[in-house]
Formats: sequence, structure tokens, C-alpha cells
Amino acid sequence: MERITATYYIETPYAPEKAAAVLAGEQSSGTFVAVPGETEELKQRFAATVESIELLETANEPAIPGAVSKEGKYHRAKVKVSWSIENFGYNLPVMVSTLQGNLYEITQFTGLKLMDIELPASFGEQYEGPVFGIDGCRQLTNVYERPLIGTIIKPSVGLSPGDTAAMVKTLVEAGIDFVKDDELLSSSANSNLNDRVDAVMKVINAHADKTGKKVMYAFNISGEVDEMLQQYEKIVASGGTCAMISINSVGLSATKKICDQRQLAIHGHRNGWGMLTRHPLLGIDFRAYQKLWRLAGVDQLHVNGIQNKFWESDDSVVNSIEACLTKMYDHKTVMPVVSSGQWGGQAFETYRRTRSVDLLYMAGGGIMAHPMGAGAGVIALQQAWKAAVDGLSLEEATKIYSEFAESVKKFGKIKPQRHEEHKGSQSLRDT
Amino acid sequence: MERITATYYIETPYAPEKAAAVLAGEQSSGTFVAVPGETEELKQRFAATVESIELLETANEPAIPGAVSKEGKYHRAKVKVSWSIENFGYNLPVMVSTLQGNLYEITQFTGLKLMDIELPASFGEQYEGPVFGIDGCRQLTNVYERPLIGTIIKPSVGLSPGDTAAMVKTLVEAGIDFVKDDELLSSSANSNLNDRVDAVMKVINAHADKTGKKVMYAFNISGEVDEMLQQYEKIVASGGTCAMISINSVGLSATKKICDQRQLAIHGHRNGWGMLTRHPLLGIDFRAYQKLWRLAGVDQLHVNGIQNKFWESDDSVVNSIEACLTKMYDHKTVMPVVSSGQWGGQAFETYRRTRSVDLLYMAGGGIMAHPMGAGAGVIALQQAWKAAVDGLSLEEATKIYSEFAESVKKFGKIKPQRHEEHKGSQSLRDT
Repeated sequence: MERITATYYIETPYAPEKAAAVLAGEQSSGTFVAVPGETEELKQRFAATVESIELLETANEPAIPGAVSKEGKYHRAKVKVSWSIENFGYNLPVMVSTLQGNLYEITQFTGLKLMDIELPASFGEQYEGPVFGIDGCRQLTNVYERPLIGTIIKPSVGLSPGDTAAMVKTLVEAGIDFVKDDELLSSSANSNLNDRVDAVMKVINAHADKTGKKVMYAFNISGEVDEMLQQYEKIVASGGTCAMISINSVGLSATKKICDQRQLAIHGHRNGWGMLTRHPLLGIDFRAYQKLWRLAGVDQLHVNGIQNKFWESDDSVVNSIEACLTKMYDHKTVMPVVSSGQWGGQAFETYRRTRSVDLLYMAGGGIMAHPMGAGAGVIALQQAWKAAVDGLSLEEATKIYSEFAESVKKFGKIKPQRHEEHKGSQSLRDT
Repeated sequence: MERITATYYIETPYAPEKAAAVLAGEQSSGTFVAVPGETEELKQRFAATVESIELLETANEPAIPGAVSKEGKYHRAKVKVSWSIENFGYNLPVMVSTLQGNLYEITQFTGLKLMDIELPASFGEQYEGPVFGIDGCRQLTNVYERPLIGTIIKPSVGLSPGDTAAMVKTLVEAGIDFVKDDELLSSSANSNLNDRVDAVMKVINAHADKTGKKVMYAFNISGEVDEMLQQYEKIVASGGTCAMISINSVGLSATKKICDQRQLAIHGHRNGWGMLTRHPLLGIDFRAYQKLWRLAGVDQLHVNGIQNKFWESDDSVVNSIEACLTKMYDHKTVMPVVSSGQWGGQAFETYRRTRSVDLLYMAGGGIMAHPMGAGAGVIALQQAWKAAVDGLSLEEATKIYSEFAESVKKFGKIKPQRHEEHKGSQSLRDT
């Protein structure tokens, strides 16, 4: 019978094998009381199994509150635990409750992070994965052999549908491939989502009629299930190609319901993610997380960016991009969304480390605040990526491409943030 | 215009007012680039406002990875930030993305926990809250003036529907008020949920026909939206009164969709909660969390228990019970579900500290493993609560109540776990 294997990075004041046994017991049928008709065979069938324990470093202080070590030693380890898929079948929420449920409550652990999930072959048949993914998003936007270039409407909240449409007009004329709502905006007092769809799609459809290029706009439909379905239909009826969902806020079941409609590419925004991963010994690593959302069917998934403005290290971002680009079954591959403080200058390092142009590369100020205008901003990003792929350095690119050279003058002094700070935690994260 | 105010416990290497300003900017329209038509009035309307900053202790090490302090000082503070409800209207997922979204990514914070949310009056009209709540659950089970006594079917996974029904028969004849599936079980290979509903409801309905007492069974319907709706209908058609949802795994939008069906009490299981709260300076405190799920409409919500087997301190459990029992608008009040290592002995301390019997009090082994049988186990729990409310001590109760006395002999040596260990972190949690 097929099994699902989860890899955890744990810390415990006890012997790791004992703590791992508690985990396996708590999260399956292990805590048996004597029950009539219960057999050893049933236990074997449904009990979780500790597959392996790899001892790592020892700490003198607990990472998070839990049982206290008498010797003042907290042992860290990589632990693999497996479950038969007979326990829950093809039910993602129950799988999540099994792999990420009460085990975070267990006092025997002073640290626990779900690092990865190995899923069995039959999941690849049961779940379709992204309906569009990288290939589908390329077809919808007619962009090949380079990243999709995208931007976010700013200010996040406050523009009227007409204001937004005017900005979209500037952007589509500038040659943008993708535009999105901010996650803080769905329907505000002065920008009803339906009205915004009307205003924005009028601009995008007119541009498509004239040029043949249909820009993808991710409308933020995050909300209640029925509302989301209504807004989804509105976007479809208006000729749109994409909807955005704040996946953590909406949740797994409702996100899958939306993905299952199969008519729009779904832009998966992971806001709230920092809460789930920022501590090196609590929560879930992106490698495990992205698998859940690919099974749910999101087509695009945020990964932060190289030299981003947030807390995340470049190593972590690269790992996340690689996780997204790793094939799952014969599913379409989810498109990594690179964003946060991007302006084109990071294209070189992003390409050097990932060797891929299968990205949605999002820049805000890097486009709208370009000294020669938004059109030059878009062109500068395309130039940066062409130069990166051609093996040029940033400096060499500035000599060939004038729009990119201007953006370097304006944005190039923005310091890469805290490159070295997280090496300590990063080494934990990569365990 | 009404505003929503969030209280955060933060840590930062910078001046707290600067970090708070970054938060407010990131999470509203604060990061303005120059946009045509943008006015100061629009900014005022949609910008988040830092309402207050209360300086607290200073730490020498950062709680979670982030910007590094040059002086090696990390300042902690309680910060209140408010948003106009015009930013997102009545949209819980977008509210969550605003209050709990990208702000966890901000490098200027080396700790950030959402402690509480103050919601405006109109939310009380827009959201109905629990359809049943404490009053409705009492009516459905016909239990008044004492806690509902409940138990969980164990082993979690492995029993057939017939096995489960046989155990339910024992329990209903023992006088139990409430029984639930384990969160690890929805449909396993040998216990299809529909079959389990048939088998269990046959027992419960027969008992109700005979005695007039309908025991509440929480079937775990956690899954995809359409599946959950089908299973919900199955439970209704079978005469059931309750469904259980693993709220973190299913998510906010789909949980609300189920609550909106209004025919069954919804048992909100918070498994996965430890991931969201266990670190004192990351995630969300229960006081804020329970408000979100009450707005979504869950009728019962887990709070752990006094002297529980998990990591959580008694103080934290008491705070959680009090949070649930605090009135929200004119809504029905959510019923706190006390569980984890409970056997009746904790009734005294639970009542002493909460002065309430408005609980669903869950015991596993405390009922099934009672030396005189499950019936005596249920009676012992009722006796413990009567004694607690009557002001008796545990010792005094054993002299009056023989079933309870037996349970003390069997379970009374189970040591309260780690009572003192978390005082340090608790003081942070209660900030």
C-alpha cells in the first residue's frame, strides 16, 4: 500500500527516537487503549512509522517553549515519518491535519518544522495540479523564452476603478505582460471589484484587439466561497484570464474549489507565509508548502526575490524557485512569482543561480518610477533578462541597453539587504 | 467611519515607532509612489494609523531572524494599528491578509504576534456568529447547568463503522452527551464517512427514541467544499446534529461556507494551532484567533485543558476559555472545548479559575478506561463537576462520590505536566 512520508526538522530534550515515537503515536492510531475487535493487523495497517532519524546538532537553549531538559541539552534531528494513504485517502485537509496538526502541540518537542512531503504516485492521478501552470500562462500572454514581466497596482488601496484602468492603460501600452491587484484590495469603498473588472478589462481587451497581446490581470477575488465564484464568473465573462487568491487567508478547501473551475489561471499569493516559516524550528518549509498548493491547483505561486526588501535570504529564495520548477508527476509546473524590491538589477543573480527564465518577474517602482517612463521601465526589465541570459554582467548590460542603464542610475544604489545575516538560520532551514 | 484596530506584540532592533510606521505603510496605502489623481484626502481615508506604542522590555538576542541591531538591543512593544473598514469592507480573508499578511515578512521586526482585534459595531450586524453556540448546543443535547461531557473515539484511525457504532452504543448507554471523530479520521480505507454516519446515527437515533436524549456526534467532514456539503447533507438527513471541521486545514472561506448552512452545530477543531502560536513572538494569540472563527460561525472551539498533556500552560488555557466566554455583539457565544489529558480531576481547578460550566469537557481514557466501566466514567465526570461547583475539594469529592473516587485511584497519580515551565513565555503571551 502506498505511503506518504513527511520529513521534519525537530528539537527535543529527550532522545530523538523517543520524541519521534510520540509524534507517530499522536498522529495515527498509536495511542491505543484496549478496544474490542482491535487487532495487531489493524495497528500495522494504520500506524504511522518512524522511517529514519538523522542526528544533527545539539543546542543549549530550547528553540520554542516545551519540556525542559535536565541536562540543558536540546537535540536536533531530521526525522522521517510515514503514513499509509489508507488513513485518509485523497483528502488534502485531513492530510494536513495528520502531517501538521496536533504534533505542533507536543511538549516533547522544543522545535518542529515540516520540511518536505513525499507523495505517492496515485496522488498524481487523483490530483490534476495546475490547469495552466508555466506553459498555460505563456500561452495566455504569448510570452516565450523570457520571464513574464509583471507589476502591482500601487497604491494598494485608494484608487478608483477609473484610476486603476488609467494606470493599466499606461502599463499595457508600455508592453507589460502581467498586472495584479495588491492583496490588500479586493473591494474597497471606492473600488468595487466588479466595477474594476469592467474598467480594467475594457482597457486590456481594447489593447488586445489592436495588438493581439492580451495582458494578464490578476483580480483579487479572495473572499467567501460564493462571492469568489461570482467574481470568477464575472472575470471569465469579461474576457479576463486570471484571478488572484490569498491562499493562506482563504484556505486550502476554498482555493481548490476555485482552481477546479479550470477557466482562469490562479495567482497564488502567499501573504501570511512569514508566520508559517520565519522561525527556523517552527512551522513549514516552502518545499513542503508548495506541494500542497500545487495539488490544490494554483498556477502561480509567490517566492519573494533575490535581494528582496523582506527578511528572507537569497538562498531561501533560490530554494523556493527550484522547488516550484521541480516537476511533480506529469502535472503542469507552477510558475514562481518573483517579487519584493525587484527592478531588473537582480535578473543577473536570479538567472545565475536558477538558470531559468520560467518566472513571473514582478517590479513596482522599477517600472512606474523609471526616469524615461513606464514603457522604458518595462523595456529595461526585458533588457536585463536578455543580458543575464546572454551571460553579460550588469555593467556590460548598461553599455548596450540605454533604458536599463537609466534604471541602474536610479535604482542601482539601493543596497541589497542583509545578505549575510541569516546564514545561521539558513543552515537550519536547509536541513 | 468605523475602524478595525489590531494589537501586536512586536520586537525590533529599530525605534519601535519607526518599525510600526513601516508596518502601517506596508499594510495599507502608505507606500505611495506619485500617482496621477492621488490626493491627500484619499491617503487619509485608506492609510493605516499607528494608534499607540507601549514600550516593554528589551532583549539582547532577536527572537526570530530579521534585521540585526548594531547595539545588540531588541526593543519589545505593544503596538496598536487601525484601518478603516472602507479598505476591505466585510471580507474576512482580505481582513486577515491586512492584519496578518506580509507584515510577518518585514525585516524591521525580529518578532511579531497579533494579540487582539477590536472589531466595529457593524461587524456584529454583518456577521451572525455561531448559529447554535452554547445555548443551541445545550438545547440540542438537553444538558443544562453543567458542562457537556464528551469523548473522542479512539483509536483515531482503524475502527470500522461497525466498531465505532459499537463503541458509541457503550457511550450513549453510559450517559455521554457528546462524541467526536478524531481529526485524523474522515474517510479511511475501512471507515467511509457515509457508512459511519449510517452506523452511528442508527445507534444514536435508537437511543433518542428510547430515552429522549439525543447524543451529539461530531462527524469529521473536513475535506473539499463539495464533499463537505454532501456529507453535511448526509448528516442532516440521518438526524445528526453536529459536524466537525479542522478549521486551520480547511481554511476560513470554506469553513464559513459550511457554517452558513445553519442546520448543524459546527465543532471547530484547531489542530495545527501550535504552529501559529507556540512561539511567544510569532503568529497569533488565541484572543485574536477565536474572534475570526466566531465571525465565520463555528459553534464550538478547542481550547486545550488545565494540566493538559501538551505544551500549553494553565494560564494560557484559562485565557482562552475566558476569550470564548466573552460576549461578542449580541451573537450566540462559542462553546469552549476543553480536552487533552482530562479525566475529571481537573474540574476543580478549571471551575476555580473560570467560574463557568459553559464548557464541552472532553475525556478519553478517563471515561473508557474507568475501572467500573464507561458508564461509571461518565458519572465520575459529572460528579467531579458537581463537586467543583458545590465548592468541594477533590479530596472531599472522593468521600461522597464512589465513581469519582475510583477514577482518582486510577488517574489521580498522573502528574500535572510542567506547570511552572512556561511562566517566562507566558508572561510574553499575556502582554
